[in-house]
Amino acid sequence: MKIGILSSGGDCPGINATIRGVGKTAIMHYGMEVIGIHNGFTGLLNRDTELFTERTLSGILNLGGTILGTSREKPFKKIIQSGDNKKPEIICRNYMEMGLDCLICIGGNGTQKTANKLFQIGLNVIGVPKTIDNDIYGTDLTFGFDTAVNIATEAIDRLHSTASSHKRVMVVEVMGHSAGWIALYAGMAGGADIILIPELGFDIRKVNEKILHRLHLGKPYSIIVTAEGLKTDCLSPADYISHAVGEATGIEVRQTVLGYIQRGGNPSPFDRNLATLLGGHATELVAQKQFGRMVCFKDGKIGSVPLAEIAGKTKRVSSDNELIKQGERMGISFGI
Amino acid sequence: MKIGILSSGGDCPGINATIRGVGKTAIMHYGMEVIGIHNGFTGLLNRDTELFTERTLSGILNLGGTILGTSREKPFKKIIQSGDNKKPEIICRNYMEMGLDCLICIGGNGTQKTANKLFQIGLNVIGVPKTIDNDIYGTDLTFGFDTAVNIATEAIDRLHSTASSHKRVMVVEVMGHSAGWIALYAGMAGGADIILIPELGFDIRKVNEKILHRLHLGKPYSIIVTAEGLKTDCLSPADYISHAVGEATGIEVRQTVLGYIQRGGNPSPFDRNLATLLGGHATELVAQKQFGRMVCFKDGKIGSVPLAEIAGKTKRVSSDNELIKQGERMGISFGI
Amino acid sequence: MKIGILSSGGDCPGINATIRGVGKTAIMHYGMEVIGIHNGFTGLLNRDTELFTERTLSGILNLGGTILGTSREKPFKKIIQSGDNKKPEIICRNYMEMGLDCLICIGGNGTQKTANKLFQIGLNVIGVPKTIDNDIYGTDLTFGFDTAVNIATEAIDRLHSTASSHKRVMVVEVMGHSAGWIALYAGMAGGADIILIPELGFDIRKVNEKILHRLHLGKPYSIIVTAEGLKTDCLSPADYISHAVGEATGIEVRQTVLGYIQRGGNPSPFDRNLATLLGGHATELVAQKQFGRMVCFKDGKIGSVPLAEIAGKTKRVSSDNELIKQGERMGISFGI
Amino acid sequence: MKIGILSSGGDCPGINATIRGVGKTAIMHYGMEVIGIHNGFTGLLNRDTELFTERTLSGILNLGGTILGTSREKPFKKIIQSGDNKKPEIICRNYMEMGLDCLICIGGNGTQKTANKLFQIGLNVIGVPKTIDNDIYGTDLTFGFDTAVNIATEAIDRLHSTASSHKRVMVVEVMGHSAGWIALYAGMAGGADIILIPELGFDIRKVNEKILHRLHLGKPYSIIVTAEGLKTDCLSPADYISHAVGEATGIEVRQTVLGYIQRGGNPSPFDRNLATLLGGHATELVAQKQFGRMVCFKDGKIGSVPLAEIAGKTKRVSSDNELIKQGERMGISFGI
Repeated sequence: MKIGILSSGGDCPGINATIRGVGKTAIMHYGMEVIGIHNGFTGLLNRDTELFTERTLSGILNLGGTILGTSREKPFKKIIQSGDNKKPEIICRNYMEMGLDCLICIGGNGTQKTANKLFQIGLNVIGVPKTIDNDIYGTDLTFGFDTAVNIATEAIDRLHSTASSHKRVMVVEVMGHSAGWIALYAGMAGGADIILIPELGFDIRKVNEKILHRLHLGKPYSIIVTAEGLKTDCLSPADYISHAVGEATGIEVRQTVLGYIQRGGNPSPFDRNLATLLGGHATELVAQKQFGRMVCFKDGKIGSVPLAEIAGKTKRVSSDNELIKQGERMGISFGI
Repeated sequence: MKIGILSSGGDCPGINATIRGVGKTAIMHYGMEVIGIHNGFTGLLNRDTELFTERTLSGILNLGGTILGTSREKPFKKIIQSGDNKKPEIICRNYMEMGLDCLICIGGNGTQKTANKLFQIGLNVIGVPKTIDNDIYGTDLTFGFDTAVNIATEAIDRLHSTASSHKRVMVVEVMGHSAGWIALYAGMAGGADIILIPELGFDIRKVNEKILHRLHLGKPYSIIVTAEGLKTDCLSPADYISHAVGEATGIEVRQTVLGYIQRGGNPSPFDRNLATLLGGHATELVAQKQFGRMVCFKDGKIGSVPLAEIAGKTKRVSSDNELIKQGERMGISFGI
Repeated sequence: MKIGILSSGGDCPGINATIRGVGKTAIMHYGMEVIGIHNGFTGLLNRDTELFTERTLSGILNLGGTILGTSREKPFKKIIQSGDNKKPEIICRNYMEMGLDCLICIGGNGTQKTANKLFQIGLNVIGVPKTIDNDIYGTDLTFGFDTAVNIATEAIDRLHSTASSHKRVMVVEVMGHSAGWIALYAGMAGGADIILIPELGFDIRKVNEKILHRLHLGKPYSIIVTAEGLKTDCLSPADYISHAVGEATGIEVRQTVLGYIQRGGNPSPFDRNLATLLGGHATELVAQKQFGRMVCFKDGKIGSVPLAEIAGKTKRVSSDNELIKQGERMGISFGI
Repeated sequence: MKIGILSSGGDCPGINATIRGVGKTAIMHYGMEVIGIHNGFTGLLNRDTELFTERTLSGILNLGGTILGTSREKPFKKIIQSGDNKKPEIICRNYMEMGLDCLICIGGNGTQKTANKLFQIGLNVIGVPKTIDNDIYGTDLTFGFDTAVNIATEAIDRLHSTASSHKRVMVVEVMGHSAGWIALYAGMAGGADIILIPELGFDIRKVNEKILHRLHLGKPYSIIVTAEGLKTDCLSPADYISHAVGEATGIEVRQTVLGYIQRGGNPSPFDRNLATLLGGHATELVAQKQFGRMVCFKDGKIGSVPLAEIAGKTKRVSSDNELIKQGERMGISFGI
């Protein structure tokens, strides 16, 4: 059998571990051929590919980024806009001309949606979930998330010393457009006093009350962790909160927007193993000809779900999440 | 209500996060009183204790070690040997004189066994599993394990450069007396070529074959990760394997025994959150008067199991573990 | 003898190591008394102090921040503005009433200027240079700088994977208001393609040329490191460069402003030792009654310089700095 | 001009940064040709080489190990033993047949000795000092040392929590055969209570006294850092000290031998810059035809010294080293 593999969407630690997991299992265990497709769906449109050997896959387990490159190309996007989108057709033709038996798509929500569409028009597709945001439906965890939480938590650890030495409020904005997973996990692990996530919304008065309450208890410093996806009018969450808190409390406020350092660099050991297992399981599904599915990590176990079931959905933090409930019991404020 | 809390057995990152989780939940949410008992069961025998306040619990989330101290005191041990062990009696008396409504015991397999005995003789006991070895029955994961795997993997990452620059075999011995969890997870995450764990046993000829096979493929370097609990006669696993491989293959071999650095230092964010949740849940059980149970993390969820069910048992790596099966498919040798 | 010690100005890793170096040497070696003054010169105005014991100084070597707290209070500032500034007088009175034989001031350029003025009006003062920016005149290196360079370099390391996976230009803004030391050292250590520092100025056309030249060589990604002090009209350097480069080259550009994570957290081993030596030497100067001096690290050795010689000056990167010259020889662009 | 470059002796973080510094400067600035010689002097004997391009040198700045490989081959060794050593002759012939104008030897004391002999028999040689041990004469610092100190200090940081939680003495053995630089710097940075280095010798009774003195002060835990080169009869320093201290004091003692993790992995930013500067300066010396010299870092500046002056010597810690004197003033024991 002949597998094509691509990575699409944002950078994420663990993609290379997945590629290695897929490729080594395919080549060494099943004797399959593996074709690396460059720069996401762009490479599938351009036939920009390479044949993988065991050597290609050596030494990449702990590398950040993706040896395949990535892009934000969404081949089905134009259909809606102009009606004459030839891209799906080109992809199908290339898939056939390349003699592929399956296409493995490593990517986030957008990529899984595209993967599902490709499956619906007849390609054998398997999805591998990938995002630091952990917001893919159908899987409890995605690789990249643990690494991002580690980086964000280490940053919060560092900010504690500035906060307490200067008696300041420090606002830390972490990644998470539509879901607050990183903010919640890093905030809890970093000992934040206030954690704000888009799922819960927030009341700036509650935030200010909490800070003044701490001041009253002899704690003139506080750490606020916010997800970038928090709705705050036209300002960024970090800007909005900093201004609002500074004005209402009179305490000095400083902000830090962590940005891209959360995406890059070596994956954590947890993410390497998760990525390896998901990659290996994707190859298993190919061997068993179970297509149209996304591999997943659910209730502590590796498995898979139909792409049709998860495409177009987003996994958000629910208000009865255990970490939120436990945080509230310990006096951490969620701004509500 | 009045809770006593102690930590017993080996050092482990995340104990302080647990103490904070128990204590803050108890004090702030339930208005309970919390008594910290020093140095494990020794402090319960000697009435060496302190009253916890919110301030005691502040700033300890990310500290390694335990603010309570620990010891290897096993109060039931002497019964078997001499018959006149007064320790359980003293503990019961102190428990009552201190006016405790519950005793929370943070510890490993030995501690949970003691906890169960104390429950059987009438104390209200709740266990919190704690070990870097991850070998406690009844819970999928223990805090400390992720941190230990991180440290061991980072070490293996470092050894790769020496291995490949010098064309050497590097043998890394990691912790794990009766179970090979750290060796398996860190070995897989660190890209080891050979992983040896006590559960599977091993054949030194298979190890040598693998190394010679790699040499034959143009890879004159290899990484072997072994658990300290591997059975290798009178030598340590690192010593035995180094000598045996060096002799049989003629390749230079160097060994590293990671030792105590795996136990100390700041817990990883994952371990901090796991410890916080387990600690918080322990306090929940107190509030619900569900005694004689150990809190646990099972199938991705926080819960609890009866101490009687898990006491005296050890959770070992099974031969159909997903990571082992995936490793084998990628050509990693387990020495069997 | 009786020493007062304070830390003033911005947070910086290594202040606690200095305090420990001063204090342990004074207490254990010389039998002096040491008074910790809280929150910089504010504590000297308010008599907000504590008596140090050996125990106060235990366990703080590797802590970030400052156990004394800090503030931006500049007691001589108002003189210029209104003429009736009583603060210097209050400080002198408190100094005498507290029975101090010397005041040790840990701080940056502003603090050393104040220290010199206090010396001029009759106090026995010794300065200890402290800044992550490394811009204090009279010393080759300041503690905090190595730690900041480590953090910034680690961030740049992480951004490489995003840059190359996405074929993007990544702009990283690091600290350094008036001097580009962090940008230069972290840029060189992080393998930046373009490094921009305020001392050299820059021509945006040279920056764009360099990026297009790399594109032409088949390298569609680049890393630009800029100091925050770069003059770029009303925009921040990161904003200005991102927009300008994006427009001129058509390549996607992303920016990261590292901010406060460069200031906080545990000092590097180098900074701990430098801080310890400088602190110890400050106490030596007290014992020798050599006042009005700032301890320093010059040509690889610990020593001291008269405060009068360095007050009001800034140490900036010179254009014939060895790292710049070496960078240029390797094809790194400095935008000029 | 045509440069040959090799790395010889033990693995050390920063070799690749040096190779890049030499190579990029030579190729991009001077238009020289650069030949990479594999596996130290072995590759020079076997003509096992490759032509470097700019691409070979890309992305290696922060890699541990050496892309050239290394060996312990000492081409002059046999002369002394048998008299008919042809190796120097072969090296000369290969050097000429390869058309080299200069040979750059990256290595430790042994390599610099060989480099000097090759220079004496007529080759144009330049040495680059390389060792984590920092024991090369003629240079204040060597790259690899800062990284090793960082790793060792981080390990000591971790051991503190075990030491204090368990009230134990922890003995940490770090690298340093003939010189105690790593033990001294990491011991001081890690807050060790006792530091033992071969240069000073030690009296085990002083060690025990110190530990008992601490016990008496209510500190039942201690950290001892020892260099592996400490003379302790037939036992390793860690073994000897552990047994002796355990017996004499009755306190539990645990040991950790850090070993090869100190050598591997990514160089610290400081080491990357030092290696880059030394590499660049080596190429400068080639351009200026100043052969028979070793580049060095002296009094805070890059420079060079004649190989003849430093060959065969070792730089050891002197008893009036500033860190030792400062340590003693703070009550740290050096066992004497």
